[in-house]
Amino acid sequence: MTQTHSSRPLSVLVWGENRHEQLEQNVADLYPDGMHTTIREAIEEHLGQAVSAETATLDDPEHGLTEEVLARTDVLVWWGHAAHEEVSDDVVDRVHRHVLAGMGLVVLHSGHWSKIFVKLMGTSCTLRWRAEQDREVVWTVNPTHPIAQGVPHPFIIPQQEMYGEYFDIPVPEELVFISTFSGGEAFRSGCTFRRGFGKIFFFSPGDQDYPVYHHKDVRRVVANGVAWAQTLRPERTDPQLLRYETDDFYNGHDYQGAMEN
Amino acid sequence: MTQTHSSRPLSVLVWGENRHEQLEQNVADLYPDGMHTTIREAIEEHLGQAVSAETATLDDPEHGLTEEVLARTDVLVWWGHAAHEEVSDDVVDRVHRHVLAGMGLVVLHSGHWSKIFVKLMGTSCTLRWRAEQDREVVWTVNPTHPIAQGVPHPFIIPQQEMYGEYFDIPVPEELVFISTFSGGEAFRSGCTFRRGFGKIFFFSPGDQDYPVYHHKDVRRVVANGVAWAQTLRPERTDPQLLRYETDDFYNGHDYQGAMEN
Amino acid sequence: MTQTHSSRPLSVLVWGENRHEQLEQNVADLYPDGMHTTIREAIEEHLGQAVSAETATLDDPEHGLTEEVLARTDVLVWWGHAAHEEVSDDVVDRVHRHVLAGMGLVVLHSGHWSKIFVKLMGTSCTLRWRAEQDREVVWTVNPTHPIAQGVPHPFIIPQQEMYGEYFDIPVPEELVFISTFSGGEAFRSGCTFRRGFGKIFFFSPGDQDYPVYHHKDVRRVVANGVAWAQTLRPERTDPQLLRYETDDFYNGHDYQGAMEN
Amino acid sequence: MTQTHSSRPLSVLVWGENRHEQLEQNVADLYPDGMHTTIREAIEEHLGQAVSAETATLDDPEHGLTEEVLARTDVLVWWGHAAHEEVSDDVVDRVHRHVLAGMGLVVLHSGHWSKIFVKLMGTSCTLRWRAEQDREVVWTVNPTHPIAQGVPHPFIIPQQEMYGEYFDIPVPEELVFISTFSGGEAFRSGCTFRRGFGKIFFFSPGDQDYPVYHHKDVRRVVANGVAWAQTLRPERTDPQLLRYETDDFYNGHDYQGAMEN
Repeated sequence: MTQTHSSRPLSVLVWGENRHEQLEQNVADLYPDGMHTTIREAIEEHLGQAVSAETATLDDPEHGLTEEVLARTDVLVWWGHAAHEEVSDDVVDRVHRHVLAGMGLVVLHSGHWSKIFVKLMGTSCTLRWRAEQDREVVWTVNPTHPIAQGVPHPFIIPQQEMYGEYFDIPVPEELVFISTFSGGEAFRSGCTFRRGFGKIFFFSPGDQDYPVYHHKDVRRVVANGVAWAQTLRPERTDPQLLRYETDDFYNGHDYQGAMEN
Repeated sequence: MTQTHSSRPLSVLVWGENRHEQLEQNVADLYPDGMHTTIREAIEEHLGQAVSAETATLDDPEHGLTEEVLARTDVLVWWGHAAHEEVSDDVVDRVHRHVLAGMGLVVLHSGHWSKIFVKLMGTSCTLRWRAEQDREVVWTVNPTHPIAQGVPHPFIIPQQEMYGEYFDIPVPEELVFISTFSGGEAFRSGCTFRRGFGKIFFFSPGDQDYPVYHHKDVRRVVANGVAWAQTLRPERTDPQLLRYETDDFYNGHDYQGAMEN
Repeated sequence: MTQTHSSRPLSVLVWGENRHEQLEQNVADLYPDGMHTTIREAIEEHLGQAVSAETATLDDPEHGLTEEVLARTDVLVWWGHAAHEEVSDDVVDRVHRHVLAGMGLVVLHSGHWSKIFVKLMGTSCTLRWRAEQDREVVWTVNPTHPIAQGVPHPFIIPQQEMYGEYFDIPVPEELVFISTFSGGEAFRSGCTFRRGFGKIFFFSPGDQDYPVYHHKDVRRVVANGVAWAQTLRPERTDPQLLRYETDDFYNGHDYQGAMEN
Repeated sequence: MTQTHSSRPLSVLVWGENRHEQLEQNVADLYPDGMHTTIREAIEEHLGQAVSAETATLDDPEHGLTEEVLARTDVLVWWGHAAHEEVSDDVVDRVHRHVLAGMGLVVLHSGHWSKIFVKLMGTSCTLRWRAEQDREVVWTVNPTHPIAQGVPHPFIIPQQEMYGEYFDIPVPEELVFISTFSGGEAFRSGCTFRRGFGKIFFFSPGDQDYPVYHHKDVRRVVANGVAWAQTLRPERTDPQLLRYETDDFYNGHDYQGAMEN
């Protein structure tokens, strides 16, 4: 079992768009309680008592992402696809602020095009894709990374949507996995980023049309990503622009405006 | 003289906020034609016939950054400070789109807090600072980088505003310069990033209260940065999300919406 | 207290050259039991029951670095300076092999010029220096990194040897600390690297002429580095070149020589 | 045509092991003048008057890599496979010294296991492989990189040896290409590194059993790599460890030995 770093349980919130499950029978068959529930169970399966995991969905008030909820969340897991545009900009700004202040974020699959991921990356986050039951083979290129522990090299997902390069993201700080697809495509499928005091893991396997979140190795990687993304800093604090007088390295003053400098 | 890569002159646009120069006599004395003009001259001094450089300022219609102007600009240089908030969000979105499509961007000094830089970085871009005439010593930590050519190691700026860590940016793809200040602070003062098909160089020396853009080595670095930031791609094209059928690697289809996949 | 990841205590070996302590009274006064002992105590102070730490020195048979010792060592800490050349090439090759197979390595201060560090880096590992009691200020530029936890930003070492750029190392995978010195120099003072299945942390504070390993924050960083450098992989195995038949991703064959391919 | 940066022609030396061509008829048929000649012609085809290219082989005196030859070489291109062990350690040390002092190095295909590449990387440089006529598809993941210009995305090599992950190299400073193979493997096939004042490009396509160096896009990438790898620094100088007195940033003294510090 992957260990976590703090003594209290890690507070994890799995956010699911939860639309395909309601509108498409094949998705409901694969994920009768919603994809978010299956993902939460994967995390609990591997992290056990070390986590306290909840779920929230798009149709909850404020999408279930109130200030209060985010303030107590150590790691947020995000799955969205068909309804990215329905996510409120105010909520996205709130999540963004919490990530910069130290909340971990695990972005799954089509979450690459979520407002929050695009805002954190600063790029278009576009890619090439195809939904034709390609076999995906996931290769570890960073064998000492915590997120790569406990899965075979490679691991194989029998049926998957193809995601291919060029994936328009900033160069990942750590490239953990590269995937190939039956059709010959390659994809940087496991990537880490840090933004402000927050750690971000993007992991691409996981389409709604395939039972990917029931896959043993995918479940392990998602749990590893959650454990990795937690902050080690004791408090959640925004990065701030402050003035420091000479020889005082520790007591910054608030900024008073550009003209007064 | 630094060479550029294409046969036609590189089209450079130096954007200046141009407020301090109008409101503060000491700045007007240092930069009688505006900081943007001095910066443009530095670029021309080093790149000569290889560039065609213009300027634009905040008070121009659409801040001088119309679709037409951006479409013909190879590299945009940005200096702003007191009036970041006055820059129109629509213009920022337009510049952002052009950067992702291949326009180079050189962000100078207090431009770290410009809307366009913050949007491209995805972080707060905050830092620590002090305006007390610190000596800045600029050290090259990437001695083979094109941007570091032609300047001594280190070079010294006698009087400067202090910018110190923690500078809340994504880890730079290339860290070219680290600066120290009399007070003992350190700063990652020369950093490159790529976003989409655009190349970005951030260079921190350059406060309005000091004659920094008249400094020989600063001028060379700004010109080097412009030459480096130009795209080598033949056309400006947005990164796009497209579907590719199996065995057809080259003819993507437009996306038809998430539910139809 | 920093946690470690495995259930058994982490096996740490602190290797000290142990020459200055015998030849120079001022060093013996600072480190009466040798620098390696002080460093071991720093690790024990912070990691407690989670580690089992020993020491070895240059004058031990095989420098105390036999195959048997290395095979049971999770993390090796290295301090050397005056006698790098006396370290046997065979022992260096053995340590190198164990690092590639998964042994962690923490290289301290003048160990930058040790045979093992130079061999792992592939560069000259040269730098600029001066021993004139500079004040060193250590700035965290990677605030979420495990190695940076528990120390103030910045922390200050009142007297230190100056190490300055250009430091001829490969670009660090993670740059954790940047130091400045009274004289105005900058140095990448905390850097991580991975080589094979081994994790490497270089940390520059620590000259024999100053009481640096008695410094509270330096002790914490060394301990953090040890905890970070441990491998998470279950077994120590060399990276190997193997042939894999089509559709068999898991059973590699030994290489039979270049001409038979 | 790719431009180079200096006014005199770039001095390029293509080093070929030249053994397969003499011992195996199928290789001689593909490369009647040796692989090194075909590679040299590819470079000349794309860089034209901007280069002056020569060849050298293993059986030349000192392998054709004398001090005099290396001193006038801007970029060395390396292809070796069956006879890595026959390359003299003294010559490898000499090449290594020149790379650290600013000579560019382009390492091709099985050169991943050459003594010089292994020495520069510090790792085992092992990988997985298979010689069964896989199709290799080469994807650009760094679309603004000079080395990626002028080739389609992706480009396809109909028959190739498979090289797969885990490739035991340090994390590349820039990952330019990722390849996939018919069998489903992935490989980081185009990687840059800097060591000392030298720039290094590794490019994996190119087995002796296939006509890979006659492939249009492979030829362009090799030429791009040569143009990129040239140093921009005016002189070839070793990185050196020097002492600098306080307030004298420019006049270093030679090191006098560890005990005198």
